[in-house]
Order: sequence, then C-alpha cells, then structure tokens
Amino acid sequence: MKNSTTKKTITDNTVDPDILSYTVGEDPVLDKALTVWDCMGTAAHVTMLSEMKLPRSIVTKAEAAKVRKALGAVAAEAMRGEFEIRVDDQDVHMAVERVLTERLGDLGKKIHTGRSRNDQVAVDVRLHMKDEILSAETETVELAKALSRFGAKWGAIPLVGRTHLQPAMPSSVEMWATGHAEMIADQIENLEAAYRLADINPLGSAAGYGVPLPLDRQRTTALLGFRRTIHNCFAASMARGECELALLSALSQLMAVLSRLAQDLIIFSMPEFRYFTLPREYCTGSSIMPQKFNPDVLELIRSKAAQVLGLQTASASLLHAMPGGYNRDLQDCKWLYMKGLEITRTTLRILAKVVDGLGVNAESCRAAFSPGVFATDVALRKVAEGMPWRDAYHDVRDHLERLGEENADDAVRAKKHEGTTLGIDRKVYAARFAEIAKGVKARQAALAKCRKALLGV
Amino acid sequence: MKNSTTKKTITDNTVDPDILSYTVGEDPVLDKALTVWDCMGTAAHVTMLSEMKLPRSIVTKAEAAKVRKALGAVAAEAMRGEFEIRVDDQDVHMAVERVLTERLGDLGKKIHTGRSRNDQVAVDVRLHMKDEILSAETETVELAKALSRFGAKWGAIPLVGRTHLQPAMPSSVEMWATGHAEMIADQIENLEAAYRLADINPLGSAAGYGVPLPLDRQRTTALLGFRRTIHNCFAASMARGECELALLSALSQLMAVLSRLAQDLIIFSMPEFRYFTLPREYCTGSSIMPQKFNPDVLELIRSKAAQVLGLQTASASLLHAMPGGYNRDLQDCKWLYMKGLEITRTTLRILAKVVDGLGVNAESCRAAFSPGVFATDVALRKVAEGMPWRDAYHDVRDHLERLGEENADDAVRAKKHEGTTLGIDRKVYAARFAEIAKGVKARQAALAKCRKALLGV
Amino acid sequence: MKNSTTKKTITDNTVDPDILSYTVGEDPVLDKALTVWDCMGTAAHVTMLSEMKLPRSIVTKAEAAKVRKALGAVAAEAMRGEFEIRVDDQDVHMAVERVLTERLGDLGKKIHTGRSRNDQVAVDVRLHMKDEILSAETETVELAKALSRFGAKWGAIPLVGRTHLQPAMPSSVEMWATGHAEMIADQIENLEAAYRLADINPLGSAAGYGVPLPLDRQRTTALLGFRRTIHNCFAASMARGECELALLSALSQLMAVLSRLAQDLIIFSMPEFRYFTLPREYCTGSSIMPQKFNPDVLELIRSKAAQVLGLQTASASLLHAMPGGYNRDLQDCKWLYMKGLEITRTTLRILAKVVDGLGVNAESCRAAFSPGVFATDVALRKVAEGMPWRDAYHDVRDHLERLGEENADDAVRAKKHEGTTLGIDRKVYAARFAEIAKGVKARQAALAKCRKALLGV
Amino acid sequence: MKNSTTKKTITDNTVDPDILSYTVGEDPVLDKALTVWDCMGTAAHVTMLSEMKLPRSIVTKAEAAKVRKALGAVAAEAMRGEFEIRVDDQDVHMAVERVLTERLGDLGKKIHTGRSRNDQVAVDVRLHMKDEILSAETETVELAKALSRFGAKWGAIPLVGRTHLQPAMPSSVEMWATGHAEMIADQIENLEAAYRLADINPLGSAAGYGVPLPLDRQRTTALLGFRRTIHNCFAASMARGECELALLSALSQLMAVLSRLAQDLIIFSMPEFRYFTLPREYCTGSSIMPQKFNPDVLELIRSKAAQVLGLQTASASLLHAMPGGYNRDLQDCKWLYMKGLEITRTTLRILAKVVDGLGVNAESCRAAFSPGVFATDVALRKVAEGMPWRDAYHDVRDHLERLGEENADDAVRAKKHEGTTLGIDRKVYAARFAEIAKGVKARQAALAKCRKALLGV
Repeated sequence: MKNSTTKKTITDNTVDPDILSYTVGEDPVLDKALTVWDCMGTAAHVTMLSEMKLPRSIVTKAEAAKVRKALGAVAAEAMRGEFEIRVDDQDVHMAVERVLTERLGDLGKKIHTGRSRNDQVAVDVRLHMKDEILSAETETVELAKALSRFGAKWGAIPLVGRTHLQPAMPSSVEMWATGHAEMIADQIENLEAAYRLADINPLGSAAGYGVPLPLDRQRTTALLGFRRTIHNCFAASMARGECELALLSALSQLMAVLSRLAQDLIIFSMPEFRYFTLPREYCTGSSIMPQKFNPDVLELIRSKAAQVLGLQTASASLLHAMPGGYNRDLQDCKWLYMKGLEITRTTLRILAKVVDGLGVNAESCRAAFSPGVFATDVALRKVAEGMPWRDAYHDVRDHLERLGEENADDAVRAKKHEGTTLGIDRKVYAARFAEIAKGVKARQAALAKCRKALLGV
Repeated sequence: MKNSTTKKTITDNTVDPDILSYTVGEDPVLDKALTVWDCMGTAAHVTMLSEMKLPRSIVTKAEAAKVRKALGAVAAEAMRGEFEIRVDDQDVHMAVERVLTERLGDLGKKIHTGRSRNDQVAVDVRLHMKDEILSAETETVELAKALSRFGAKWGAIPLVGRTHLQPAMPSSVEMWATGHAEMIADQIENLEAAYRLADINPLGSAAGYGVPLPLDRQRTTALLGFRRTIHNCFAASMARGECELALLSALSQLMAVLSRLAQDLIIFSMPEFRYFTLPREYCTGSSIMPQKFNPDVLELIRSKAAQVLGLQTASASLLHAMPGGYNRDLQDCKWLYMKGLEITRTTLRILAKVVDGLGVNAESCRAAFSPGVFATDVALRKVAEGMPWRDAYHDVRDHLERLGEENADDAVRAKKHEGTTLGIDRKVYAARFAEIAKGVKARQAALAKCRKALLGV
Repeated sequence: MKNSTTKKTITDNTVDPDILSYTVGEDPVLDKALTVWDCMGTAAHVTMLSEMKLPRSIVTKAEAAKVRKALGAVAAEAMRGEFEIRVDDQDVHMAVERVLTERLGDLGKKIHTGRSRNDQVAVDVRLHMKDEILSAETETVELAKALSRFGAKWGAIPLVGRTHLQPAMPSSVEMWATGHAEMIADQIENLEAAYRLADINPLGSAAGYGVPLPLDRQRTTALLGFRRTIHNCFAASMARGECELALLSALSQLMAVLSRLAQDLIIFSMPEFRYFTLPREYCTGSSIMPQKFNPDVLELIRSKAAQVLGLQTASASLLHAMPGGYNRDLQDCKWLYMKGLEITRTTLRILAKVVDGLGVNAESCRAAFSPGVFATDVALRKVAEGMPWRDAYHDVRDHLERLGEENADDAVRAKKHEGTTLGIDRKVYAARFAEIAKGVKARQAALAKCRKALLGV
Repeated sequence: MKNSTTKKTITDNTVDPDILSYTVGEDPVLDKALTVWDCMGTAAHVTMLSEMKLPRSIVTKAEAAKVRKALGAVAAEAMRGEFEIRVDDQDVHMAVERVLTERLGDLGKKIHTGRSRNDQVAVDVRLHMKDEILSAETETVELAKALSRFGAKWGAIPLVGRTHLQPAMPSSVEMWATGHAEMIADQIENLEAAYRLADINPLGSAAGYGVPLPLDRQRTTALLGFRRTIHNCFAASMARGECELALLSALSQLMAVLSRLAQDLIIFSMPEFRYFTLPREYCTGSSIMPQKFNPDVLELIRSKAAQVLGLQTASASLLHAMPGGYNRDLQDCKWLYMKGLEITRTTLRILAKVVDGLGVNAESCRAAFSPGVFATDVALRKVAEGMPWRDAYHDVRDHLERLGEENADDAVRAKKHEGTTLGIDRKVYAARFAEIAKGVKARQAALAKCRKALLGV
C-alpha cells in the first residue's frame, strides 16, 4: 500500500485535501481503465508463484486457481462497469486486493508475495497500452481508408496543387486525399515503436531489485503474452515513464499530421475556395452572427494536437535527469498518456466521420485553375521538344503572360507516373492498409487468448 | 533556384542582411554534410532519366554516365573536405549544379528535368539521416557495451538499490550498470522507427505533384537503396518535416535516458557517496575554489538533453497545423535535426569514454548498507517460513529496530532469479547488442554499395 | 449560443459523444469557477446599455436594476455552491442566460444586445485570472515568508554551500532558506506581467469587430475595475489566448523555481545527508519495503512542474501561427490555464506546510564540512596578508593537504557583507514581502468593491 | 579559470574534441557580445575593491584607475570589432584577464579578488540582456508604428472581419493593422518583466556564498546602474538561468504574436484574396515552377516562432528540478537566450520592412463582402427598432436569403464606438508608443552614462 498512515487519516477525514489531490489525484477514476489488466497481471503472478519449486509452497495450485477465479469475477464486473474503486482504496491495486481479501480471506494477503506496487502498475500500464495502441492503429487505418474512399469517390476532379499555400501545379482530389491517407498510415511506424517498447514484461522486478525468491519471469512473460522480458529488474523500474513517453511521442506526431489535414479542410472549405463542403453536424453557429457556420470541430483538432504536444513535453521534462530507480514523479505519467490516448483516438474517429461526410464542389475546384498553375507543364512540354530544362524554365518565366487557356482535366490526365494525378494506384493502399489491419487483429487475438486463459473472460 | 532575384542582389551586395540570414541562414555550412548525398540523388535521377522510353531522350545513357562521373568527382572532393559551397550558391544544390555546369556545359542544365528543389533536398536529407541513424545506433550499442563491460569488471560489488532516491534494497554495481545499458539499448526501437520513416524514397515527386514525364520512381528507389517509394507525390512533399520530427523525437528520448545515467553518476560520485570515481579529464576546477573538482561534462549532458527536447519541440510546433504541400518553414527543420544528431552522437561517445574511465570504491559501496536496506529480504524470509506476506511486512515494519547486522554480499548473492543481482545473464546482452550491430552493418554495407555503384566512391 | 442545432440534438440524445466531448468538453465543470465573474460582466454591460443615449432605449435603467438584482442572486447561489450548469446549457453563459430568462422573461433576451460570447468569455476569464493571480501572489509570499521564518528559526547553523552539487564554500541554513525565498518572491515579476495583460478590458468588442451601437467601453472598464480598455476590438478578440499563455508562462517559471527547492529538500533529507527532516505526513511508505519513508510529495512537485511546462507548451503551440480573429482552438486555453493555476496554487500551499514542518539536524550539517570547503577562505586570508589573488589560489590548490581543521561556525561568522552568511538582513525581506502583500490586498479590495457595486455580493 | 588541466591539454592539442565541443562550445564566438559588459563589471568590482576600508588595501585607488583605463581600451577595441577571444582563452573572462595581465602585469592578477567566474558571467549576461531588451523594445514599437502608419495610410478601406477564418462582420484595413499593432505593443509587458528580472545585481555573490571580505555590493549596484541588488548571494547564483528563461518566455510570446501577423499576411495575399500585395523582395521563386512567387520570409517567421518556443522549452527543461547553487548546465542558457534574441530582433526588423512595403488592393477587399457579413448589423438595426436581441438574431438567421445588398463602406462607417471601424483613435496609439519609447530611451541613457563613467566609452 502507498501508506497506511495516509489511509488512516483519510478515513479520519483529517487528511489535507491538498496532499490528497497530490498523492491520490485522479487515480480512482483513471484506474478504472486498468482493472482488467491488473487482474490479469495478478493472475499470472499467482500462477507462477504456485508453480515455484519451494520446500514449502507460498501458494498452492488449488489456491492459485481460486485466486484466478476470483480475479476473473472482478474483471467481469469491471467489464460490465460494476467494479468500484473507492477513494480510500486510492488506486486499483488496493481496490482489487481489498475485494480479494473480502472474498478469499487470508489467501488474499499472500498474493502479493514477491511483488511491489511498482511492478504491479508497470504490468497494468503495459497491457493497457498494448490494447489501446492496437485500437488506435485500427482507428488510424480506418481514417486512412475513409480518405481513400473519399479519393476514389471524387476521382480525378482537378484540384490546384499548392506549395507555400500558393497555386503551384495541377493536382486532383484523389491525390490530395490519398496523400493525407499515406501520411497518416505511415505514422503507424511510430505507434509500432511505442508498442514494441510497451510489449516487454516488467513483472518479477518487484521494486526494481528483484527478491530472494526463485521467481520464474519467463513464465509470466508467456502467460501474459509479452514478446520478451525486461531482463534487468532495475531497468524494469526505470522503463516506467519511458514507454509512456514513447507513446506520447508517437501520438503527438500522429496528431501533428492530423492537424495538417484539419487545416487543409478549414482553408479549402472557406467560401473563398469552397472546394470542400463540411458536414453540417461538425460545424456550429455564432451567438452574435446569425449567418455563421464555423468549422469548430476542425479547429479543435488543431488545438488538441497542441495539447498532445504539451502532454508529451510534460512527460519528457518529467523524465529529464531523473535519478535511477522508481521515483514518485512517474505516477503522473499515467494521466498524461491516458489523456493523450483519449484525445488522439477521439480525433481519429471524428476525422473519419468528417471525411465520410465531406462533399466536393467540382465547379469551384476547376474554376480555381489560374494560367500560372500550368507553367511547369508548359515548360516540360518544351523540354520534351528538346529545350534544356533551365532554358525552358526561363523562357516560361519571362513570358508568363503567354500562358494561355489550358484545361485542368487534361493536365490531371497528363501526369501518369507513379504517385502523380493519374498514377495513384488504389491497390497499393488497399494492400498496405490490409497488412496493418491484419497485424493488429493477430495481436488482439493473442492478447484476448491470454486474458481468457488467465481470467476466463 | 530559390530565387534568381535574390541571387542577383546578393552579388550586388544590396541584399538586406536580415533577409539573407532568414532565407539562406546556415545552409552553406550545414549543407556540407549533404554534398555526397546530393550527388547520389542526382546520379540516380539522371540514370533514370536516361532510361526513360521517350520519342526524344532528354538525357542519353552516355550523357548520364558523364554526369555520374562528374558527380563522383564532386563527391570525392566533398569527402576530402575540398568541396566549397559559396554564400552566393545559397545551398548545396546550386553549388553542385554550378560546378556541373562549369564542367559539363549545357548538359548541366538538363539534369534537373522533372525535378524540384523539393524532392532534391528531401532525398539528400533522407540519405543523410539513414547514414547518421546507423552511426548513432552503433554509438548507442557501444555505450551499452561499455556499461556491460564496466558491470562485468566490477562484478557483484554490492550497491544500495534506491527508490525515491532513498535506500531501498540490495543491488549491485553490475545490476546498476546493465540496467542503464538495457534502457539505452531499448532506445534503438525509436531510432528504428525514425529510420523506417526516413528509408522511403520521395524522388520523382518534384514539387509534390509529379510531372508530365514517365518518371520511373521504382527505379530510383532501387538505385538509392530505399526500402520503398513514397507512393503519393503530395505525401512525399508533406513527409518533409515528419521524418525530421520522428528523428528528433527518438533522439530526445534517447537523451532523456542518457541524462538519467549522467544524474546517477553525478549523485553517486559526490563525496557523500563516493561509489564512483569519475575520470579526471571529464571534470574541471573552479576560478575561485582551489579544491573543486566538478563533474562538468556530466552536467552538460543534462543540459544537452534539455536542448534536444527543445529542438524537438521546435520541430513539432513548426509542423503544427501547417497547410498541406511544401511550405518554406520546413527548411528550418534541417538545422534542428542536424543539431540534434550532433549533440546526441557527441553525448553517446563522451559517455562511453566516461564509463570506460569510471572507477568503483567497493568500500564506500558496502559501507552504505544501512539495516533498513535488508528489511524486505527479512520479511520474505518470514514468508518462506510460512507467514503470509502482509503479516510479515507489518511484522518487520513495526519492529525496524530489530533489523540486525546483515551482510551486503550475502544479500546480493541471495537474489538469483532472472534479472536480479545474481541473475544478470551477460549472454543475454551480448546477443542483443550483437544483433543490433549486425543489422546496422548490413544496412551500412548496402548503402555504401549503392553509393559506389552510382558515384564510384 | 454556440449552435441551436447542436443543442437540439443533445436533448434528442442523438449527438455524437465524440463531438460532444470535443465541443462541450469539461466546460460545465470548469465554468463553475466563472459564474460570479460572468454575472459581473453582464451586470456591467447591461448597466452601460441602460445609460446609452438612444432614441429608443434598449434597456431602461429600471430594467438594468432588475437584471443586476437577478444576477446578484445567481452570483450568491454560485458562491454558496448552489448554481448548476447543466450539460445541455453547455457553458456558464447559457446557464446564466437560461436562469435569467426563466426569472425575468423577455428582459432576459435583451441583455446580450451588442455582445458576443467572445467578449463574454473574455471578460469572465480576465476577471477570474485577476482574482486568481492575486491569490497566487499571496500564496507565493506566504511560502517565501515560511522560508524566512525557517531561516530565522535555525539561524546560523552552518551548511555546506555547493556548486555542481559538490561541497564548495561555507553557507548556512538561513542563507539556503532565504536564498530560495528570494528566488520565489522574485517570480512575482512574471505574475505581475500576466496580471497586467489580464487587467485590460475586452468588453464591447463583441465578436472582435464591434457593433453599430454607441457602446461606452470606458464605462464598463470603470465599472469592472480594469486598468484600461483594449482599444481595438480586433485586438480584444486576438488577445484571448495571449493572456492565458502569459499566465502559464509565469506559472511554469514559478513551478521551475519550486521544483528546485523540492529537489534540494529531497537530496538533503536523504540519510546520507540528513540535514533536513521532512514532516512525516508528507512522506509515504512502500508496499514491499517495510522500512521505507519516501518524500513522495516533493517528488510530485517535480512532476507537477513538468506538467505546468507541458500546459504552457500546449498553449504556446496552440497559438502558433493562428490566423487573426477568434478561432475555436482558443476555447481549449481555458482548461490549460485553470489546470495550471490549480496545480501551482496547490504546490505553493503544500510547500509552505512542508517548510513549516521541516526540521534541521545541526549535527549532520556541521559534520559535513570537509577541509576543502574552507579552501577559498584560506586563500582569501592570504590575499588579506598581501598575496595577489591568483597566486594565493594556486598556493592553496597545490597544497590542498595542508588545509587543516577549520571551524564551520567561525567560517559562517567570517562572511559579513550583504547577502552572505552573516549578512542576511531579515528586514530587507520583511519589507519586500510586505510591499507585495500590500499591493495584492489593495487590488483585491478594489475588485471586491466593483463586485459589490454591481452584484451586491 | 575553468580548469588549468583542460587548458594545458588544449595547448597540448591532446584534448578530446568531443569534450572541447561540450565544455567550450561556441563560447569564444558568443562571448564577443559580452566583452564590453565584462569590462564594465570588472571596472565596477575593482573600483569597489579600491574603496574598501581594509588594514592593507587589496587594490589602491590609483591601481583601480589604471585598471579602468585598460578595461576602457579593451572595450573600445571590442566596439571596433578588434578584440579577439582565442580558443584557448575559452571565454571572454579569461581573454580579458589575459590581456590585462599582459598590459598591467601583477596588477592583473589581483582584480578577481573576491570574485568568481559565476558572478562575473552573471553580471555580463544581465548587462547584455538589459541592453538587448531595450533594443528589442524599440524594434517592437517600431513595428507597431509601421502597422499604425500602414493603417492610417489605407484608412477606412473595408476588410471582411473574420472569426474561425470565416467571413464574420465588417472590419477595415486600419482595424486589422492597428489590432496587430496593439497586440504587439502589449507584449512589452512580458519584455518588461524580463527586464526587471535582469535588472538586479548579482555582483559580490562570488560563487554563490560570498567571501570573507567587506565587499560593498550596493556600491557596484550603483556604479553599474542596476535597480537593486540581489540580496542573498545564494539566490544570486540560482538566479542565473531564471532570467534567461524569463527572457525566452517573453520572446517566445512575442514571436507567437508575430507568427499570427505573418499568417494573416500569407493567407490574405493569396491570389484567392489578394487583399494585400507583399513587397517583391520578401518573396522568392521556385526551381521548378516558373510562375511562382512565394511568401518565404513570412513562412520563415512562422518557423522562427516555433524555434524560439523550442529555445524556451530547452531552457525550462534545463532548469527543471536543478539542485540549488551553480550547476554547469546553466552555461548552456547563454546560447539559448542569445539565439532567441537574435531571431526575435531580426524578425521584428523584417516585419517592419514588410509592413512598410505592403500594398492594399481596395477592390479585392470590397469585392469580398458577401451578404452574410452584414447579418449582425441587420439584426442590430432591428434591435434599434425595438425587437429583443434574441428574436432579431433568429429572425435574421431564419431568413438569410433576405439579406440584400449592403454597402461595405457604409457598414464600416456605421460602427463608431471605441475601437471599432470608425472608432480607432490614432492618438491613443501614438501616446502609448511614445510612452514606451520614452521609457526605453531614459534607460538606455542611464546605462550609457554608467558605461562612460566606468570605461570612458
């Protein structure tokens, strides 16, 4: 337990609310998300304890089975939203221990033999993260797919391609949409790095220095489905915070990419462009201006991206020059990563719905092609006729007024190489997205299987 | 070119120095690191141009060979430190183009057909990053190895394990050292994510919208040794900045881990602990206090970690809500990632040397064991005798004064399970480090092979 | 209102929970802190409306009195914790408007003539900030005073002064304590800058462009007690976010200073130093180690400092390159600054209590003086005897072994100039703290007077 | 000196380049900006030393005069760009001491009696900061004035006022320009807080613990023109870093405001708006697109704002939980604040020139008024005729199609209250800017007077 003294004073109502807000904080609420994983970690630990070769067994196999059953019941309650963490439990670990002791008596007191709250929360957080990252990856792919569908639906409608926000070269709605889709899907790399750092087992490290008991750490690694064990117990305790930071770094980068999509949608749905029509339900009015129709949800995506960056900065600054071994500062990483996940996952879902409801005004898109947009194409035609590139470039630049009427649709159809307007290969994306989804599903199944085996739920 | 107007005024000496500092900045210096990669990217592009099936070839195969040879010469000069980027070149791209035009005449004007400075710098940066990340990974492993060696050398000398900086449980020098080594080696995951995001080819995307020429983008991907092509040209232009941010995120996380090692060394070499003796050459004196001997280099590691976090924040804020397509802001990502790499790589090398020169005072280490450090072990002994864990815990806690003389070395030897004091398996680390090093070497060889094929150097 | 469509769907239970979390978020909870200020702003606006010279008055003076009375009742309810903001109110502004309309009928519909939710929330936030900053300044001074008292109580007990964490020169407990006190009190400068940026009136700017009504903006500035009006209405709308950022910057800097005090306390209460004894109620035990006694609260101060930096980064990144005029992103500044205030104010209060309960072990403090600590003093004695400084420095440095037994208390008493061990002048601090407190009280009284005049509470 | 060992190895050319880059870094270059201030600090110190009542004077008044004269010569050389800091000087302090010793012999060895490099650099940095902040304030006001001039020149040309980037209500070019001007001028508050934190004298604190000599710290405070002394010597050493952070926070906030002006200019000079015409010399072309004309300089202002945020984050993270007393990390604050100043001041100057060269297309501005922009005005007209506000709002909203032809110029002229289109009072700004400029000039004169008195230059 964190501190029996503190707990006593809580029931005495004498504890300082400032200290309570500092030490317990939001844990009773945040920890709800950890209950199932806490049960799973304890089930694995107790199973392993019961299998240790000792002159006198700490927990018998029959006792371990009882504990697993009781933990399964708690997990089931948690999944139905019926498990309660009381303020004087302080956190999920004490809440589960309390219930187990109520239900199993003295056996409840034994199950933490060889454990510390340090490795308990470390396991919970890693299992929770793995599960959440997989869900976030699914939602990332779903958004990328929505953009692909949108691109396919509106096909080759010409869009002014821009650099420096200025009209630059002929592009298309599909190029714009799948460009963002590809950027978003590529962010899976960062999520995967965070997943790999989360997918290593700290269990058995106790408070970071192990215990004089023959714990079988490979066994709990197998039971819980981690890809490997954190070998060094001291590393296991220091790795708390690092995996949260890796996750927040990945989320922050993903949010940066999403903020750019939101920015494009905000700008190109302005009445001055009107390329895109935003779905009404994602816009709001004004308390003073009766005519207003504002892209609030998209603007809030920008601000949420800034907030996830802030969460990551907090987490990074928190770890900066922290001495080795567990330090209490690390507790605050919990709400940081949980908040980061919640914001990012909500944003992914919202953007997918925005994209699904997005309309395109083909007329506005075509009307936006000024002659200059074709300048590079004209210069390259001169090259095809034999003029060296630099000469063609200068020839066009010095006579911009000669750029005549070009056809946007023709220009879009004239670019055929890989990845340009006519060279977007939908199969490339379909294959890439399917591969990610497949990898996610396989891991979700493996995790569910471990949970089922340990908890029956 | 960025702007012929600007260039003209530069030679006229009339350009505003404020604008010059803004638009050209440090490029003539920073870009030196890119010269070889710029040559390589251009060699690949020209080779591909010469292979395009066109009614009238833009560059013949013979011309392409000439260009490759000239680029090889430039690259060789750059590697010898003899290639100069003049201020009025503004950047490496114009410097190389200028030299090629001087040496090859009109042929020099053709080689940028179908290219933009956007995809040129994007290729350069990615090749440079790949090379640098591999070097950083090598240095990361070297530091981890140095810590392992240090751990092996000082074997099982007992060290007070701490949590909350307070004495907690028996640990050992090897556990401390390999704990840091494992944390450091795990950071390879983040570097690998950055590598994977860098290792995709943007070439052929021109200014982000492709060109009306049958560019064969898979061909340059193969020639340059990228693992795949960025399919969508618009994505290729937006991905600038994202890979720099991924790298800075990885570096910032690695530096956070290194700052914690530095902090441990600073604290545990204080005269009040004297566990470790820092190598003299990494310490400095004082201008007023004749007796001082300060761990300056380690303190600067802490501040460098803060600086890399700052570089990452800059890079993240820069990308926040940036509209799609190339924007000039992205140019500033270059110095950010280069500075981040330089700081991190220097820190890795310095720390490896510090660790190599580190001494251990076994006596001080042992003297630091107060009776409380053994409390958990004593409680667990009671558990082994049959007492439930919570009862044993309270029994010891309520009679701390009874904790008698325990032997630190015995305590270290009593913990044998995986990853604890006696359970550090050096083969685990040797295998892990070897695997990383092998992966790095294979990729370095592949990159060198591509360079040799294209440039002859 | 934000959007009647959205509101309708909320009552229909058909609104997407993701959108609800985005657009409404925590507002119904956060806005509770704004209720009184919202009433005050509206009371000032309505008063001014009733005084406008118009052919046909929008609100009569009698009506304005009625509205003020009703607002006073709402404010009184809010102060008793009895005012409710319903989820379908979305925010405090609609909640107050709803209640007013219930109680005053059609008159309730008139009171927002010439206003926008933009200037409504801007006024609320600024009044709230002013009040909170003054409270934070009081708490800052209280902490500085606690440190001063602590310094005075433990007088001239010698303490090893450190640089680079290494023993450096003789210092004293009072020097240490008042050094931190002075640093903390100096942070008032930043809070004052934030106060000055908050203390300018945005009211009458409507949505950032004013209205075609003869609003008397100087009048509401006087009624609300702002030091001046934000002249330009467009500036008034853009200044939203900037004052939140100024406040978060000030808070973040203050927290950085507090984190350094916490760090000193953590280190110097370690058993290896034992200079300070932390009050038991601010420490906690361990779930596995019966002997542990951890400085959790101080560690959490470090992590809270990191979090406030994160909030500031979020706020800064959110504003980065935001287009002019109100943008919805700005709504998210509200929780950022409120969270920052809550964390900082709690930390100030906790630290004051920690300092009040802090003990000093004079014996440990004196025992820590190694001969080297006196080296500079010895060198300066040689200077007093006529040796040039650099020669004296080298003489001592080359013969460190000759540094004999010096007395710590004598050394502390030997330094008498301003601000050194014997030169701490308590009157200097008393005067400085009194001056700050006086300025705070005067402004609190002025604000209370305005509130009383407008709302009767 | 930092370390004679290090220095010896430097001359031996055996020092590790990695360590050299860490410990010396850019100091020989950066410190050039500090030379004059270093001379001034030393002149004040020596003057004070010569005035101390001691049995045997350390420095006589005649010697002090000699030293001041020699320092004046060094300062004059530095101002002419002729003073050199050699790599093996490591920093400005050793360079000045070396030259003094060359020129004055043994007297040079005495002048650092009672000083440490800590209070030496602390004084230099604070004098430099004061000077730079005043220059930055001047440039800030100059930019605000340029915007005011621009607003006055283009008078009441109607501009669509926006919220959420959407057309909102009638505004004017002057309202837009002076809105930004007011925002920018308000940032002076933050610069002033940084100034006040810089304007306190650390001299006489030595290494943070004073010395056993009767230093008269009030005397140097007067000689150097600081507003007061940092009383506690330990505070003086800890305040290093805090004033750099305060300055970077102020600069970062100012840059955020400037980035918003840049963003408005980028958007509203797009061909789709064409409200503003950017001066040609601040735009650049493209290497592939002959027609391009890009607002590069403005885009770089956005990225520079991100970079200053990064510098501030670095500085804040560096200070996080740093132990009390000087730590070497603090040295790295120097380049952070110097870089921040350089970027911000350059940006201020560039923006002033951009604004001076800015054109307005009155026709495009007027053509942009869609009927919806007048909706609020129409609703308020109904209010003036007696309809309650909420009813008028709904009446207009439900019949947006009825919004007929309104005249933008009339709408601009219809809003007359303070701060709206016709209510911008140029005298308000003129007075505010003049007051700031006056305060700056007075302090510049006072600083120059002190310098003249001490150094004769």
